[in-house]
Amino acid sequence: MVKKEEMVVTPWEVRGKIDYEKLIEQFGIKPINKELLERIKKQTGELHYLLRRKIFFAHRDLDWLLDQYEKGNEFYLYTGRGPSGETHLGHLIPWVFTKWLQDKFNVELYFQITDDEKFLFKDNLSLNDTKTFAKSNILDIIALGFNPKKTHIFLNTEYSKTLYKEALRVSKHLTFSTVKAVFGFTNENNVGEIFFTSMQTVPAFLESVRKEKNVPCLIPLAVDQDSHFRITRDILPKLGYYKPAIIHSKFMPGLKGVGKMSSSDLSDTILTTDTEETVGWKISNAFTGQQPTKELQRKLGGNPDICSICQYYKFFFEPDDKKLDDIFRAEKEGTILAHEHKQDLTEKVNKFLKEHQKKREIAKGRIEEFMLRD
Amino acid sequence: MVKKEEMVVTPWEVRGKIDYEKLIEQFGIKPINKELLERIKKQTGELHYLLRRKIFFAHRDLDWLLDQYEKGNEFYLYTGRGPSGETHLGHLIPWVFTKWLQDKFNVELYFQITDDEKFLFKDNLSLNDTKTFAKSNILDIIALGFNPKKTHIFLNTEYSKTLYKEALRVSKHLTFSTVKAVFGFTNENNVGEIFFTSMQTVPAFLESVRKEKNVPCLIPLAVDQDSHFRITRDILPKLGYYKPAIIHSKFMPGLKGVGKMSSSDLSDTILTTDTEETVGWKISNAFTGQQPTKELQRKLGGNPDICSICQYYKFFFEPDDKKLDDIFRAEKEGTILAHEHKQDLTEKVNKFLKEHQKKREIAKGRIEEFMLRD
Repeated sequence: MVKKEEMVVTPWEVRGKIDYEKLIEQFGIKPINKELLERIKKQTGELHYLLRRKIFFAHRDLDWLLDQYEKGNEFYLYTGRGPSGETHLGHLIPWVFTKWLQDKFNVELYFQITDDEKFLFKDNLSLNDTKTFAKSNILDIIALGFNPKKTHIFLNTEYSKTLYKEALRVSKHLTFSTVKAVFGFTNENNVGEIFFTSMQTVPAFLESVRKEKNVPCLIPLAVDQDSHFRITRDILPKLGYYKPAIIHSKFMPGLKGVGKMSSSDLSDTILTTDTEETVGWKISNAFTGQQPTKELQRKLGGNPDICSICQYYKFFFEPDDKKLDDIFRAEKEGTILAHEHKQDLTEKVNKFLKEHQKKREIAKGRIEEFMLRD
Repeated sequence: MVKKEEMVVTPWEVRGKIDYEKLIEQFGIKPINKELLERIKKQTGELHYLLRRKIFFAHRDLDWLLDQYEKGNEFYLYTGRGPSGETHLGHLIPWVFTKWLQDKFNVELYFQITDDEKFLFKDNLSLNDTKTFAKSNILDIIALGFNPKKTHIFLNTEYSKTLYKEALRVSKHLTFSTVKAVFGFTNENNVGEIFFTSMQTVPAFLESVRKEKNVPCLIPLAVDQDSHFRITRDILPKLGYYKPAIIHSKFMPGLKGVGKMSSSDLSDTILTTDTEETVGWKISNAFTGQQPTKELQRKLGGNPDICSICQYYKFFFEPDDKKLDDIFRAEKEGTILAHEHKQDLTEKVNKFLKEHQKKREIAKGRIEEFMLRD
């Protein structure tokens, strides 16, 4: 009997089958319920498909943030990227949603690139490597169309004159016991890793520092990053700031169908820099879970919930719920075969990437509009 | 029976009676012997009184540094200050010696002000407090007459754009186990404290980074700082740099006669900012160890080795060995009484401070000549 792999969800490792109900319980976060969705819709006029489909599925204090907003106390957004490789489509999920929030609420956004973190936690990466990935990842961020007047991107190593000083204030309230308990660190972790979460906390009050008043913060993130902000939320009131609110997304499934997409298995993911040929090859090798023969598939149908093609539509390539239903039904009823299914998606992905890669090229000349400097 | 207080010498605590022989053994450092003094004299033409009197008493790899120098491989100097209060005379000892080295060898000097450290390790100090002390301490450094063309002073929080990135490289080679063993940290230390020694290591290779070649480094310091650089010396070869050489000073005795002078007991120390009246009052209350009556002192004499007045002359106020001998003899033979002794020293100290305070005033207009900026 094969033992079911244990679920592990930390900022540095995600493996096993992800049980989001269990994560809600383990992390002590709250599911986003109908009432909260209604409150968001009241402000935004519509709901993003990532909310409708419960891909953003949980939160901390989002109700409080809306209370503040309704009272006229504007918030700001904070999200980030750990530059350990090229951007893949899964990374874009929280960013696309963050852009939507920025547009709907017309608010400031801090975008932290943790090149220090990836250097510290990855044996094989130098600071030059993480900086190179950071510069490439920033092109993807800009390509998504964030508002340059309200978006502030920074690398930790380049913005450390401001960040280090603020991180010190955080670190004075944070013991090794706590990071050990929260992250499962041991005595063999390096002292940079141990300090690092202090740096990740800073953008959660950076707008308050810069504006010299207490500004509520909302952090859209993939749920594996939550533990950093449990620490943040514990410490910020001690420094006189609000606890940040958080909204958590699920992980975009990999093409092989399990766990979180990961840049370490390149055939499991589509990179924003992939060529048409690579995309075609990766999707042709994707897991669909269809029946072993064409005839059986026509007869018995498949399961869209485990079909990575269907999941790609759900997470990214089909924002229209009606059309998504049609795709899911075709998979379920066996009216579409794997190779047709894959061909359709390949076309969609390549169409998106062609546009995106054009925008990445244009972004090369626009970087300084977005960068926050000391 | 009173238990003899245990000797403790760490970067953050010095107490008990200091046994320098034992420190040499415990720390694994080498005494500065006659041969080494001769080698220094060959280069400098003379020996500073702090060397002649073995106040700088121990070293690591100073012989190697001289080998390098003799081969034409110039070194640079690195020393520092933890700004937890105003400067006292004891702090000036390594600085005066560092200035002498700079003058004799005509070399670059990095002067690190660890305002981050003092914030992290002192519960009652804010970052504003440590910055305020830093700015005041810098006036003392400049007042000593360092060469502005070759002296680079920086606060860690102000120069962190450069320092943090380099500290990351150090920290990747340093585990909690190691800092625990070296500094005696526990799980309750804060994560800033745990990371900090990485920042203190950076100036030991900063000239190499800035010059893009490997430059030997010599660190003059009070012996309590040695443990930081045991870590530094372990890690630097892994980054491709030389281990720094170190030269260690003893602690200037306090006016009350025991342990290291400390800014925490203000009546035990003379601050560079003290008024004439305060100096007079502090010295009049100093410990001399003289006999209980004038008559007995005349008859039996005192012990210059425990007399704080004699020690002040030895460490600071009488660079002339012949004259120092006379002072010690007078104390020993009972020909000088405490109040005369104290009056003479008060005059010397006040004369020094009057000049020094003038130079501090002038220094206020010269700070930018010395500051290293990102």
